[in-house]
Amino acid sequence: MINTIQESPLYSIVNPRSIAVFGASNKFSAMGTSLLASLKAIGFKGDIYPVHPREERVLELPAYQRVADLPVAPDCALIVLPTAVVPQVLEECGQRGIKHAIVVSGGFKEVGGEGIALEKQIISIAEKYEIRFLGPNCIGVVNTHHHLNVTFFQYEGEPGYVGMASQSGSFITQMFDYLSRFNLGFSTAFSVGNEANIDIVDCMEYLAACPQTRVITLYIEAIRRGREFIECAREIVPRKPIVAYYVGGSEAGKRAGLSHTGALAGPDELYNGVFQQSGVIRAHSIEELFDFCWALSTCHRSSGNRVIVQTHSGGPGAAAADACSRSGLVLPTLSNKTQEQLGPYVPHTGTFSNPVDLTFTKNPLTYFSEIPGILLDDANADGLIIYFLMPGSQMERSMRSMGVPEDAIKEETEKVIVNLGDAIAGLRDNHKKPIIGYTFDNREGTFFKRLDAKGIPVFPGPVRAARAFASLVQYDQFCKRISS
Amino acid sequence: MINTIQESPLYSIVNPRSIAVFGASNKFSAMGTSLLASLKAIGFKGDIYPVHPREERVLELPAYQRVADLPVAPDCALIVLPTAVVPQVLEECGQRGIKHAIVVSGGFKEVGGEGIALEKQIISIAEKYEIRFLGPNCIGVVNTHHHLNVTFFQYEGEPGYVGMASQSGSFITQMFDYLSRFNLGFSTAFSVGNEANIDIVDCMEYLAACPQTRVITLYIEAIRRGREFIECAREIVPRKPIVAYYVGGSEAGKRAGLSHTGALAGPDELYNGVFQQSGVIRAHSIEELFDFCWALSTCHRSSGNRVIVQTHSGGPGAAAADACSRSGLVLPTLSNKTQEQLGPYVPHTGTFSNPVDLTFTKNPLTYFSEIPGILLDDANADGLIIYFLMPGSQMERSMRSMGVPEDAIKEETEKVIVNLGDAIAGLRDNHKKPIIGYTFDNREGTFFKRLDAKGIPVFPGPVRAARAFASLVQYDQFCKRISS
Repeated sequence: MINTIQESPLYSIVNPRSIAVFGASNKFSAMGTSLLASLKAIGFKGDIYPVHPREERVLELPAYQRVADLPVAPDCALIVLPTAVVPQVLEECGQRGIKHAIVVSGGFKEVGGEGIALEKQIISIAEKYEIRFLGPNCIGVVNTHHHLNVTFFQYEGEPGYVGMASQSGSFITQMFDYLSRFNLGFSTAFSVGNEANIDIVDCMEYLAACPQTRVITLYIEAIRRGREFIECAREIVPRKPIVAYYVGGSEAGKRAGLSHTGALAGPDELYNGVFQQSGVIRAHSIEELFDFCWALSTCHRSSGNRVIVQTHSGGPGAAAADACSRSGLVLPTLSNKTQEQLGPYVPHTGTFSNPVDLTFTKNPLTYFSEIPGILLDDANADGLIIYFLMPGSQMERSMRSMGVPEDAIKEETEKVIVNLGDAIAGLRDNHKKPIIGYTFDNREGTFFKRLDAKGIPVFPGPVRAARAFASLVQYDQFCKRISS
Repeated sequence: MINTIQESPLYSIVNPRSIAVFGASNKFSAMGTSLLASLKAIGFKGDIYPVHPREERVLELPAYQRVADLPVAPDCALIVLPTAVVPQVLEECGQRGIKHAIVVSGGFKEVGGEGIALEKQIISIAEKYEIRFLGPNCIGVVNTHHHLNVTFFQYEGEPGYVGMASQSGSFITQMFDYLSRFNLGFSTAFSVGNEANIDIVDCMEYLAACPQTRVITLYIEAIRRGREFIECAREIVPRKPIVAYYVGGSEAGKRAGLSHTGALAGPDELYNGVFQQSGVIRAHSIEELFDFCWALSTCHRSSGNRVIVQTHSGGPGAAAADACSRSGLVLPTLSNKTQEQLGPYVPHTGTFSNPVDLTFTKNPLTYFSEIPGILLDDANADGLIIYFLMPGSQMERSMRSMGVPEDAIKEETEKVIVNLGDAIAGLRDNHKKPIIGYTFDNREGTFFKRLDAKGIPVFPGPVRAARAFASLVQYDQFCKRISS
């Protein structure tokens, strides 16, 4: 294991001071052009050297005809060329003293036949020149903190703290927008492709040492170095959670993976064993991968699986209870003290059982402060799952009926809603227990945006909330087991 | 079983010409006031008679002091009064000749003790006067086609075709906005509450006969009349699909249901048996309830479980393959004919296996017409699951690079995107096989809005798409078994 990112072969790949780009032109439809455009769009601070046999300028940057013409040996070469040309260019990179590369080009091992031979060829060229490279058949990398994005899509979100190593590039690029909807973003993400030289274990080591990464996510079609994977994960897990989504366990998933990256998958049970032993939390879909990641990177660790569900609606409460049960969580009975303290807030239609269904509250604002505060104080509760419904229009009508002047209603409503979000975040900070929300509302309103910004995850629906809470419990168990 | 909605005891409850409202005032915070406000907001065309002991007008409508003062006996009484007053008012309604009521008030059987006696009391009053009533402890009803909404939330969407009977009112009202995000809406939805007089089986009968209802959704904490449920469902299913979400099967779900509606739930296995026998498709979350409903109400029935997955990204394809396998679907090999026909569209990096991963296509537009057309023609395919990614900004850049004038780019892009959506809908109509999409994109763009409008369901992620496809297969199996 490495201690700093500088020790990693990936350091120069995601923190280059200079980068040579092969395959970018002024033709918009060329893949290489898109990657260069993304690099420019994110505001890369280093030097970019397009290499092109004919163009004098590429996307307004001075271009170089041959590798040999480059004024310096750049930290990294980005290669997006037709398959057959790649070995020759890699050779020239080696001769020029370039030590790191990203080979985006496909058509290697994953297509079989001649592709296998070509992949062997680039492996041996890299060995000869001591080049470390990512790919081939990958989609590039992104390091938002270094203003580096050499992928097909432009990165428009904020720099984030989600680390990723993925055997599918799409699950990096096509998640940019998805993650930003939850106020999440990548710190550094690697598309590993065929892993001919650098593999997913190297990426895990890098992300473990990366100070901007809070949680490591993996998309896996097959693990190539099983023992190293387990050893590496076990070292990382006590410090940083790892979540993995593995698709190779089903028959169709396995076949799909084989034709995608040429990887040989194993049965579900085998991988479950590997993940268990490694302390890696297994997600069962891409959404769940990032759900778990969201909870693990924002919530306190949970010391147990006893959850109180707070609701003002019976159905959403029952659905959450059911989801908790099915996720291995238990709903403890409220202590007498808790029941006594709740008394003043609960109308006769409400219940003191768990889920705590308030039906309504005498003062709606207590739903966001006093009530969850009392529940979090319960010694039998390891955390809180809370149902949120925040129809701004309803609150505006309420303001109107209280005599708030018409031109102040919008602003006053916003102010109240922001305060409610802050109250929830304050509880999390004071009680040091996980608080996870769920809702069926549109997430675009002020309340949810505020909670997103404050790091209170609110999931679409109770099933995702319960499963995310369970991932906190599982992480805690893994940490205790591995550290002991 | 009834043949027309007019035969149902619920007819006058959701199609009243006139309605008396008890418990509405000019106090905004009163529940009854909200219900009356919702009724006015949806533009109810019949007569509304607020009954209030002191107010002369309620929400600008002339009010009546006593039931006896009403100028006519209205079709339905809506009762939102304190628990203790309900029996007396119901008695007066009976004396005035009112034959139908909705009792929203809670505090009956679900709270135990005195509440149980009060519930018995209203049951016997109803018997005496031959009143049929929904509730108590319900949240009202909505019939969007009759401009009727007597629930806590205003209905702002379009009239729809989703019928619902729910043991949680929240899963009606709090889904108004949720459903409209998928271009779905309720036809008629019943919150059944404690089912003291009218129960969920009565609602199913009504919805089966309702011409505006394409699919029946149920939220169930416990079925009270098991045999009748099964018999009724078996009669309905060959004509209209029924989907149910049952939460009582887990320990916590069962306890939550008990304190919510006083219903006694049974173990999961028992309910699985009931649903199997009834031909009712079981969903495992609220999202899934409406996912299945969406697919069943928009897609052709599937005659089998053989699905082709079309993608241009390996990861999303592999994830869909995995999800299909886990949902009981199989991915057949493409026929030789299909492979031949696909040839001209697939680059050398693409694969002819299933998932069909095109990586990219020579002409991106063929992804939405020629390619899925060929796949749907394959005799081994019962339907298509297709990955969609539609970054408008990318397409705008592409237009720009093709020399489209700057001021025409937005409009031209929109036009192309609308046509792509229409092409997909055209394939569905021509091939009579289900087409289900999935995406990680934001759903707000033109493309997804167009598909929504055309009735092509596009799910957030492959797991939900695969499970929805499986619900089509299950429905087909149920129909065949029950009809045979």
